[in-house]
Order: sequence, then structure tokens, then C-alpha cells
Amino acid sequence: MENLLVENTDLERIVILGAGFGGFTLAKKLIKSDYQVVLIDRNNFHQFQPLFYQVAMAGLEPSSIVFPLRKAFQKCENVIIRVAEIEGVNTETNTVMTDKGTISYDHLVLATGATTNFFGNEDIENNTYGLKSVSEALSIRNNIFSDFEDAMTTQNYDARQSLIDVAIVGGGPTGVELAGALAEMKRYILPKDYKELDAGEVDIYLIQASDRLLPGMSEKASKRSFDFLEKLGVKVLLNTRVTGIKNGRVETQAGETIIADKVIWAAGIKGEIIDGFAEAVVTKRSTLKVDAQLNIKGLKNVYAIGDIAFCESEENPQGFPQVAQVAIQMAHFLHKKFTKGHDKKFEYKDLGSMATIGRNKAVADLPFGKMSGFVAWVLWLFVHLASLIGFKNKLFVLINWMWNYLTYDQSLRLIIKPHNKSKPNKA
Amino acid sequence: MENLLVENTDLERIVILGAGFGGFTLAKKLIKSDYQVVLIDRNNFHQFQPLFYQVAMAGLEPSSIVFPLRKAFQKCENVIIRVAEIEGVNTETNTVMTDKGTISYDHLVLATGATTNFFGNEDIENNTYGLKSVSEALSIRNNIFSDFEDAMTTQNYDARQSLIDVAIVGGGPTGVELAGALAEMKRYILPKDYKELDAGEVDIYLIQASDRLLPGMSEKASKRSFDFLEKLGVKVLLNTRVTGIKNGRVETQAGETIIADKVIWAAGIKGEIIDGFAEAVVTKRSTLKVDAQLNIKGLKNVYAIGDIAFCESEENPQGFPQVAQVAIQMAHFLHKKFTKGHDKKFEYKDLGSMATIGRNKAVADLPFGKMSGFVAWVLWLFVHLASLIGFKNKLFVLINWMWNYLTYDQSLRLIIKPHNKSKPNKA
Repeated sequence: MENLLVENTDLERIVILGAGFGGFTLAKKLIKSDYQVVLIDRNNFHQFQPLFYQVAMAGLEPSSIVFPLRKAFQKCENVIIRVAEIEGVNTETNTVMTDKGTISYDHLVLATGATTNFFGNEDIENNTYGLKSVSEALSIRNNIFSDFEDAMTTQNYDARQSLIDVAIVGGGPTGVELAGALAEMKRYILPKDYKELDAGEVDIYLIQASDRLLPGMSEKASKRSFDFLEKLGVKVLLNTRVTGIKNGRVETQAGETIIADKVIWAAGIKGEIIDGFAEAVVTKRSTLKVDAQLNIKGLKNVYAIGDIAFCESEENPQGFPQVAQVAIQMAHFLHKKFTKGHDKKFEYKDLGSMATIGRNKAVADLPFGKMSGFVAWVLWLFVHLASLIGFKNKLFVLINWMWNYLTYDQSLRLIIKPHNKSKPNKA
Repeated sequence: MENLLVENTDLERIVILGAGFGGFTLAKKLIKSDYQVVLIDRNNFHQFQPLFYQVAMAGLEPSSIVFPLRKAFQKCENVIIRVAEIEGVNTETNTVMTDKGTISYDHLVLATGATTNFFGNEDIENNTYGLKSVSEALSIRNNIFSDFEDAMTTQNYDARQSLIDVAIVGGGPTGVELAGALAEMKRYILPKDYKELDAGEVDIYLIQASDRLLPGMSEKASKRSFDFLEKLGVKVLLNTRVTGIKNGRVETQAGETIIADKVIWAAGIKGEIIDGFAEAVVTKRSTLKVDAQLNIKGLKNVYAIGDIAFCESEENPQGFPQVAQVAIQMAHFLHKKFTKGHDKKFEYKDLGSMATIGRNKAVADLPFGKMSGFVAWVLWLFVHLASLIGFKNKLFVLINWMWNYLTYDQSLRLIIKPHNKSKPNKA
């Protein structure tokens, strides 16, 4: 029984799982194509991941960086939205199972993205925050400010320290951007908002296992971001491997202990894998092996794009980086394949990468050169603003950024807790 | 032990409980006064209650209608903020108890406001939504849209109906404004967003026990709001008393049954009373009896203002209405009493009341006349925009309103669920 209740038409059906950069872009491209497109996501919105850290740091509202799927596809007769938790795939019967029912497909595109990788360590999973959804970003924001409030009535020095200190594990873009934003909050906001607190007592740790920050970028970017963060007062610990996190203590391989109630885990991601695939096509990092046409090996009508896809080749033995640009370019590639039936190989055009550390401080590795500081920062702003979906989102983000820049004061420091009685009748 | 850790100074200390219209206004007025002011609220923000319904109906973001307390008092040396749950008052030792510790006072002002009154009916309390906080507003928004999504995969007619129908109990301003906003959503948004759904099947009930809507306003306003709502397709049931709500069914005294999973309870409020007051000063509606100087009877250094205060007089045997203006004017009165030591009686200057039903549709009873329709609507917009705290909030609300007006499409239809792991370490 097909109980996702999608009308059967004469068109071939493409089911897309996930409305992130890959799935959303592909569905958009397939508007008015000769396919029926069914886009399934657990959320009723597309999320702009690169700005999650600003939501976590009270610089932006979630609504400014997400876009409702139904609004995005309002005028499209051939795109059907279903908000459901995906439970599995049966590639023999060509069926997807969700918590709201099943649906059959002619073509299936996996675009489920990636989630935080705790490497099987339950202590770390239970005692840290991830940052792979706006909900998690809000949770970080709420807890940072709740803990500051609690600190106001905590006399014991050690107890107060563990409330106000924050440790970030992982020196990739997420870790670097979070640490920078936190350091600016410490510098510009805390002395004004929490006059009774000694802002100098707030310690921000950025813990990186390897010998440099931003290992995916150039040596120059690594060095500049390190300098920027040190200057902002972040305690950057390189060559430091975390072995356990428990009871507000971060233990490192070298035997050190860092005390912090709040630990943000940005030290790795893994694919959001779905039940129903042979072991042979699943990698150790829970991604799906695809060939150069993005076909999952052995399944000619099933594809994977974006963070969940592992596309190995001689030139790229490690696959492509798990970034938005790869997902978007893969979506464009699949769109052409579906509509023009070509047989080319997917090629990734690296447009460069960037990370922002703070006011006027960013690093960028671009095809035409490496840069840092103010120019890189302005470029970062423009690129992100341009990539946001929806004119109103762009406008609100722009106003917020201008406001924050001019006043040195992002004003979204709100602890809005979820209401307990979230669903009467259905508890 | 005073463990709210507020520094003792030479100044007399005024403790204000609650940062709503009354408490917030009073604290603002007391900036730079010769008092130490301690403002305690369970939230770290002031909430603008008159626009909760727009948050619930996806027209505004919570952050646009709340304002962080610490930001509001950033430059005030004599105002101390504490975010805590108030647990009780001891008027013999002049102490307030909170979940984070105690604090003593020289003067105490109760400004805790009001909460939803379920009149002791547990079925109603457990099976309906209140609308007395932004968290509750978000909860209503999330559940309306979740249920629409669920309706897309629900084939059974009755089951689908209970997902999409909404019943609102209570025909005061909150009920009227909610019903109007819902009806506009049904008309302008649903046919675009949920093409597969028959918007005509969505029933909106507004259930009022008495024989007219907006009983606090003029007959003309009652009649006009009724006409507006009927025109928008709302099923207004007057003279209908709800006797029970259970299993998605609303039972009325006349023996009728209305089937709706979502019932919003806007049929009454009661004071947010605090432990520690003699029975003699507490009314049946959990408000505190105050004299004409807003003094709680028998306690010369304890005051109550706003919704929690019951100020009975010969001219006002029912006390003053529980509205923002009374709270604000009481705050101004107390400010003068504290700073100038006068001995006048509180007098309420009624500036009028208004309610909005939809686009170009509002009713207003003003000292200089009663009006309805477009003029009342524009006036409503201006009054509410002017009353919002913070320039950025005004700007964002204005942009949102203009946007929604021009596009017929509020774009905040997001189901952002709270993240489960809200507080590692401290579960």
C-alpha cells in the first residue's frame, strides 16, 4: 500500500530523500520537467548550514536562514512535498519506507546529507552538543545564556567557571567560526550584559587533533585563522586528541583535563545512512559508494549526491569534500542526466573555500588567490548573502549583519525554551 | 543566606517580580533613581503579549516581539537582573524565595501578571493550548503545521478533519484575533501551500459562552467583529458553553460535539499568584487585593500592579481591566510614589481598546469615537508598532507586516522542533 498518498500520474517518478543543498537544488531544477518529483525531508524547510553557527551565537534567527519547502515549490505542479522521517529503502521493490507510509519510485536520489560523528563514543555523544541543525543551534544558544544566568548566582569559583567556559572540539570551519563568534561575544557583549561577571574569566577552548586549524584549506589560511583566534583570546590547542568527555570534564590523550560544562563537538561528520543498502556500497564513514555517474554501485536507478555520496576516482581517492558546492554541482549534474540522458562523468569545479573568524577577519582560498582579513571577510559576506534562498531572508540577514556590525551588539540573546505541553491529546 | 548574590549597597532595595508591561515599565522608570532595583523574571526577556497571536499564526518571529532584559538595562548601574523561578514570598522577613536562592527587599512590587485559567478542569488543561507566552505561541504554530503535514498522508476523512480543524474557545480579543488570522491563512496560504488539500474542508470554530464577542468592548465592536469573522468563514458559536474537552472532542452544554484535535483555550485568565499571602488578600481569580495606593492590604511595603492586582473601588467594583495600559499606568503611579512620596489615589485613564480581525479589518473603541474597518486597522498597526520596545523590533515587525500585506503570504511557516538533548550533563 502506498500511503504517502502521492497521486500516480503518467510521469516517471523521482523520489528525492533530503532537502539540503543537493536535494533542494535538484528538485528546483526539475520544476516543469517531465518527471513527477517527490521531495521528502524530516523538516518542512531547507536549512542553510553555513550560518548555523551564527544562530548558535545569537547573531541570526533560525527563520532567516531556513526556507519553507512548500513556499519554495508553491507554483510547481510536478513537485510533491512530504514531511516524514525516512526509515529505509527497498531497492528490490523500488520502495521508500517512512514513518508516515511508503512510496514507490522509478528513480531514487539519496541526498540525506551528514550528521555529527561521535565515533561510537557514547560519553561524547551524551555530553556534547552537535551543530547539524537549526534546532541544535538554538539549543546551544539557549544553554550558553542559561548558564551565564546561572553563573550570576553561583558563588563557588570552580562551579562558576564550568558554567561560563566553553570547549569546542574540532578545528574545521565550524569549530573556527564558532570559536571566533564566541570570542567576540566575550569581548563586546558580556562586559555590557553581565557587568557583575568578570568577562576575563570566560575561557574559550578550541581543541584540534592535528597540527593545524582548517586542514581542508591552505597553510596560509590555517596560520592566519590561528593568529586571528589567538588575538581574540581563544585558547587554541593543536595536536590535542580528546579521549573522553564526562561530568563536565574533557580528557585529552596527553592526560590533560579541561573543565567545561558545555562542549561543542565539531570534530567529524558521517553520512546520514538509510537502511536497505548492501554492505559493499557503504563506507566506514557511512557514505554510499557511487560511480562517476553518481549511481550507487549495482543499482542503476538509485543515485546519491552531496555529503552522503562517496565518489572515488583515481584523481580523488578520498572522494570529494563534504561541502555545499559539491552537493549543488552534483544536483546540477543529475538534473542534466535526467533531462538530457547524457553519459558524462561528474567533475567537481572547486570554487574555493572560506571561513570567517570575526569582524573584518576571514580567510579565503580562491582559484585566483589566497587572501585574508577585511577583503576575505567582505567576500565571505557577499557569497553567503547571495547563496541564501529567498529575498526576505537576504534582507533580514543583511539588516542583522549591518546592525551587529555598527552596534557591536547582536540582540538575539533570548532563552526561548520549548513549551512542555507541545502536543495535547497525543502525549 | 542571600544567594541571589545581589550586592548590598546603601540604597533601599526595590524587588520587582515579573518583567511584563508593569514590571518592565517600572524598572525602566527607576533607572538612575535612589533605589537599587532587582528585576526578577523566569525569562531573560520582556514579552509583548498583544502580538503573541501573530507568532502563533506564523506572521512574526518571537524575537521581533520580545526584548532581552539585559540589553534593556545595559547602561543602568542601579538595576540588577535575575532570571529565576519565583517560589514564594515571606512578608514577615521581607524575603523572596526563588529556585536560585533568596533575596531580601525593602519594597516589593508584584508584577507577575496572569496565566491561563482552566477553571480547575484538568481535561481542559491537558487537552488545549494556552497563549500566554511566546513558547506557547510557537507550540501552537508548530502543531498547526505538523498537523497539516500529517493530513497530507491521512486518507480517512474524519481523521483528516480532526487534524485540520481548529477550535478556539473564548471570544475576547485573543480568540477573535486568532480566529481572524487563522481564517486568512486558510484563505490565502493553504490553497497555495497545500494544493492537495481542500482548504474548504478546514473548519475554524470560535466558541463564546456569552451572547457577543469582545464583551469588554462596545456593542458596535462586538457586532462588527462578528460580521468580519463570519465573512472570513469562521464558524462563530455564541451562547455556547464548553463543558469538557477530551480525545479531540469539544463538548458543549447544549450537548453538541465539535471534533478538533487542536483546541486553543482563550476563555479566561487568572493571576500568577505567589505563595506567602494571607487568604484575605487573595481573590477567587488569584489576584491580590490592593488599596487605592496599590498597596497590598496590611503590608505597607508590598505592592501589586497589572494583571495580578485587584484594585476595587466604588467606581470600579470589578477592579480595572486586565490589560497592558492598566499595568503601565500603575507602574507610572508607583514610580512617582517611590520617587516623590505622594499619597494620591491611582486613577486609570482609559485610552480605549482595539482588536484586529484581518487585512483592513479591525474594531476600535476610542475616547473620541468608535470605529471599524480600514481606519481602525491602520490605527491598530500604528499603536502596536509604537508600543514595541526596541528600534530593530519595530523595523522587523514593520517589514514583516508590509511584506505580508503586499504578498498575502507570511513566510514563517516553519516547524522548528526543540532539540531533544537540550542540556547534556544535567538530564
